[in-house]
Amino acid sequence: MAYHLGENVVIYPGTVIGEGCRIADNAVLGKQPVLSPRSTAPRDPLPPLELGPGTVVSAGAIVFAGTRIGARVIVADQACVRERCAIGDDAVIGRGVLVENDTVIGARTKIQANAYITAYSTLEEEVFVAPCVVTTNDNFMGRTEKRHALRRGPTIRRGARIGGGAVLLPGIEIGEEAFVGAGAVVLRDVPARAVVVGNPARQIREVPDEELLDGG
Amino acid sequence: MAYHLGENVVIYPGTVIGEGCRIADNAVLGKQPVLSPRSTAPRDPLPPLELGPGTVVSAGAIVFAGTRIGARVIVADQACVRERCAIGDDAVIGRGVLVENDTVIGARTKIQANAYITAYSTLEEEVFVAPCVVTTNDNFMGRTEKRHALRRGPTIRRGARIGGGAVLLPGIEIGEEAFVGAGAVVLRDVPARAVVVGNPARQIREVPDEELLDGG
Amino acid sequence: MAYHLGENVVIYPGTVIGEGCRIADNAVLGKQPVLSPRSTAPRDPLPPLELGPGTVVSAGAIVFAGTRIGARVIVADQACVRERCAIGDDAVIGRGVLVENDTVIGARTKIQANAYITAYSTLEEEVFVAPCVVTTNDNFMGRTEKRHALRRGPTIRRGARIGGGAVLLPGIEIGEEAFVGAGAVVLRDVPARAVVVGNPARQIREVPDEELLDGG
Repeated sequence: MAYHLGENVVIYPGTVIGEGCRIADNAVLGKQPVLSPRSTAPRDPLPPLELGPGTVVSAGAIVFAGTRIGARVIVADQACVRERCAIGDDAVIGRGVLVENDTVIGARTKIQANAYITAYSTLEEEVFVAPCVVTTNDNFMGRTEKRHALRRGPTIRRGARIGGGAVLLPGIEIGEEAFVGAGAVVLRDVPARAVVVGNPARQIREVPDEELLDGG
Repeated sequence: MAYHLGENVVIYPGTVIGEGCRIADNAVLGKQPVLSPRSTAPRDPLPPLELGPGTVVSAGAIVFAGTRIGARVIVADQACVRERCAIGDDAVIGRGVLVENDTVIGARTKIQANAYITAYSTLEEEVFVAPCVVTTNDNFMGRTEKRHALRRGPTIRRGARIGGGAVLLPGIEIGEEAFVGAGAVVLRDVPARAVVVGNPARQIREVPDEELLDGG
Repeated sequence: MAYHLGENVVIYPGTVIGEGCRIADNAVLGKQPVLSPRSTAPRDPLPPLELGPGTVVSAGAIVFAGTRIGARVIVADQACVRERCAIGDDAVIGRGVLVENDTVIGARTKIQANAYITAYSTLEEEVFVAPCVVTTNDNFMGRTEKRHALRRGPTIRRGARIGGGAVLLPGIEIGEEAFVGAGAVVLRDVPARAVVVGNPARQIREVPDEELLDGG
């Protein structure tokens, strides 16, 4: 296997690194999670991290064991991808982004800088998450026992776009090709192709044809 | 003392590391602050960092000199805790969090990923701060001389919960067991047990019994 | 040249480091960008990074090639400054901040922790950007071809202040000495000296004389 390693890279045993990958300075690959004694996350032993061919893990980024990353993905500087995630081909995980555990991200989806993707999220293909978007998965914020059964991250359908600094409440579904304006706080599911803005977010129009994935 | 060190860890002289601590790759412990010539923070020499037994400092995290961290605390990946802080036992400082200088954080308080805790904050015990919460301490944003006397971070009382992406204005007090909804912008003190949402945040109800610390 | 280097620092060839600079542990200087095959950013070869005298690059920070940083600047812990930026003397780039490519930041401007400065932004002198501010530059969020011609970051005039967690829509101009409240979502240009708050942001008054740069 031919790949490129920067300085001070830490690679845990068993990590699978595809042909032509670039792993930049100070990156950490294949780390096992250290859970809080109070954490409710699973504690099963994790298989090694796998990186597909041509994938880049940039400086200071951390990718955990138990995750599979596709081909030609970019995990940008200082980002972090937790355990048991699946990241599709040609996705971009922007600088400083955190993708929490048990999350699925589709091919060609772009998550821009400093966005926060909570655990148990599903992002389909061609999704665009702007910088500093906030997602959540627990309406009880750590209180009550029933929260464990009710915890649910967002489902963001194919081609949807989420604006900078928007906040999604737990379990929200954002429909195909929908558009959430910057700074919106989304309390309810958003229909396909709807444009929503404000706090709380309300629909103001539909996405024009020219902005659809197969339009323009 | 027996503790575990990862790769490329930097530990400044005098740092006290408790029994059973785990310090992960690329962490920096006991760093002295480098202040801007224009900074108004104190410039006294700082005593060494102290970590209680069983505490974890994860990959790429930075903890400054002059801070005391209790037992079994987790400082997660890429987080940063500044100087002159006191962090209680069993607290969790999430991935990418910044806890600024002169802040007190109570036992069992959880600060989730990417939240920002401003200088001179007080968080009591069992507080829950969701991801990407923003706190502030200066209504004058660096202008006027009187700001120095008026600067005040938030006081977050026992058992309060702050939702993802919420913003707290300077000097706000969040009462015991209060609940601030995701994306709220809090301009005024929040009474104990109140549930507030929106921008500006308004009370909509009380926290139900089953969600209280001693309920459920 | 005399300057101070921490542990595990990575410096790419040609980087110019001024007299009296301090480069802290795990910092990366002069990195070339690794662009996504789908990125629309320019791909010209970049000249080396230049750091003026007395500048500090703190622990875990990354500064790219093709950028010029003035004298006595602080690039704080875990921050990142991308390629083709110009940072004026005595500026402060706070902890965890990302300054994207092709951005100009004036002398004495302070960008506080975790703020996000999008590509193609202009911040003049003495600007204050509070923690976790979000800026944006693309109303189309990656869709349509015409977006490339229309993409525009914010222009923040001399002495303006932007409150914690505020969100600026693409291409917004914030006038001289204007004040954007914490948590505001700014959809339209803000006149000089105006105070705006809310989502959407509306003007509520003017900045008092005592808070002007030449006041008090």
